Amino acid sequence: MHYGFGVDLGGTTVKIACFDDSGTMLTKWEIPTVTDNNGEKILPDIAASVRSYIKENNISFEQIHGIGIGVPGAVDKDGIVAGCDNLGWGRTDVQKVLTELTGLPVKAGNDATVAALGECWKGSGHGCDNMVLITLGTGVGGGIILDGKPLYGTRGAAGEIGHMVLNRNETRVCGCGKRGCAEQYCSATGIVRLAKDYLDKNAADSSLRKLETITCKDVFDAAAGQDAVAKEVLEQVYAYMAEFIANICAVLNPGQIVIGGGVSKAGQPLLDGIRRHIGRYIYHAAANVEFNLASLGNDAGVYGAVKLILD
Amino acid sequence: MHYGFGVDLGGTTVKIACFDDSGTMLTKWEIPTVTDNNGEKILPDIAASVRSYIKENNISFEQIHGIGIGVPGAVDKDGIVAGCDNLGWGRTDVQKVLTELTGLPVKAGNDATVAALGECWKGSGHGCDNMVLITLGTGVGGGIILDGKPLYGTRGAAGEIGHMVLNRNETRVCGCGKRGCAEQYCSATGIVRLAKDYLDKNAADSSLRKLETITCKDVFDAAAGQDAVAKEVLEQVYAYMAEFIANICAVLNPGQIVIGGGVSKAGQPLLDGIRRHIGRYIYHAAANVEFNLASLGNDAGVYGAVKLILD
Repeated sequence: MHYGFGVDLGGTTVKIACFDDSGTMLTKWEIPTVTDNNGEKILPDIAASVRSYIKENNISFEQIHGIGIGVPGAVDKDGIVAGCDNLGWGRTDVQKVLTELTGLPVKAGNDATVAALGECWKGSGHGCDNMVLITLGTGVGGGIILDGKPLYGTRGAAGEIGHMVLNRNETRVCGCGKRGCAEQYCSATGIVRLAKDYLDKNAADSSLRKLETITCKDVFDAAAGQDAVAKEVLEQVYAYMAEFIANICAVLNPGQIVIGGGVSKAGQPLLDGIRRHIGRYIYHAAANVEFNLASLGNDAGVYGAVKLILD
Repeated sequence: MHYGFGVDLGGTTVKIACFDDSGTMLTKWEIPTVTDNNGEKILPDIAASVRSYIKENNISFEQIHGIGIGVPGAVDKDGIVAGCDNLGWGRTDVQKVLTELTGLPVKAGNDATVAALGECWKGSGHGCDNMVLITLGTGVGGGIILDGKPLYGTRGAAGEIGHMVLNRNETRVCGCGKRGCAEQYCSATGIVRLAKDYLDKNAADSSLRKLETITCKDVFDAAAGQDAVAKEVLEQVYAYMAEFIANICAVLNPGQIVIGGGVSKAGQPLLDGIRRHIGRYIYHAAANVEFNLASLGNDAGVYGAVKLILD
């Protein structure tokens, strides 16, 4: 039997999993991400953790394909991270450093792209070689798989779809410094903002007015309970999501759009909502796209990471 | 020496060129596109023309790599055209039919995608493996090259960027049936429409008012002559183009955007105009993109087509 390791490097924890070469996950564990001193301990900690697993399980190095790792930043096709604020990193040659620390082959990719590869391989995107994973969380991220391979782009910034402009007339500023990005309407934060804006500008009664703070889940729950304001806000959101997805489809003509991240927990009503509006925005030749919810949850990253090294 | 043929199949003429295997164009000629009877003569006419060239030049079939052909419609990765209104075609297996008619290997691709491959190989995109050709003509088309290879998409509709939505509030209908497509603002037709709208809604004096019919070139010429209305209209157009290009870059992070089609004859002022606005719309990680004008003109199609078969 041969083995591979998948590593999902996040801002607070590192998820590590060992797989056999058919892609079955054998074990999964976590270590903290220590970002002190510009994150200098992060890669040594990962290397030590993997090496101790190898030793404890009496695995010989000849049996190991290597380590795949997803990193929260732009990673170019040589596995070099331009920089990563969350980790304190400047330019870092992840593949080279981690290979030196472990003696194993290493492949690195952007975390969202790697998660997309995971969903494509073992999750909702299974069987579809051309797919886009859209992650609707605090922000909006994306990963693109074409012909079964991750798309990195010239500088590792492919799939930064959260910063496509949806509303050129927006006055508020996105986290990226621009105005009108998809993230401002389709993220959990964006949905809450749209709800608050609506409540400010309209006198209509709503169960949301009774809440001290409004969360994204509150908006979906209120809509499920037939709150007219929440339903109206979500129709706005679904229209933005539909326009957003349609524009991605006009570029890529993917076979499948997989929606993940915290907002995707809204489930079927989210898919139905997008489908109600997509016809207005999608080009007919690209309209064959399927929509699904992500199925691997937090494991998409380690699956995609190990796939990098098994390929 | 070995040879390859590049064919650019258009609605009124078919351009055919013979290349040596280093990609040097040896001869180029045209035949009319006969669309009678659902375009049934088109492929036989192309086959006859290529075969007579081969015979006249005493080329043996062993010396020929084959024929690459660009077709004005969605072409899937197996070379099958779903349908093509301009030619009168329904579903057509271009590769199979043209191989049967010539005895040569054939590769088919969408015309815009094939033109992009041509610009990438021998034109303005030379040296850049990740590029997008945007064709600003009567409509707006696009071709995407990633890692030096054309992107087809699931059903051959990748690169249909002219139908990305730029203005969700548009009331007029695009040729595709949707509202607010990039084509409605960035094509020659769209630029003329924006100019007419501006003249209708504003009382400002303009040299454009003296013209019986306004063409796209008239608008650029008037702007070059410091006509304030034309300049204002083009600033609107450049802002739309910048938003359009920025959204493509957020998806793909290309190294280069090459702009072709009739509108690109405006030249440097067009590139400068887009550059004045791009900063407002482009995500910083994708902002390394270069802009260039297409350089192969009408030959991009035959260059890209032969590249399909030489690869």
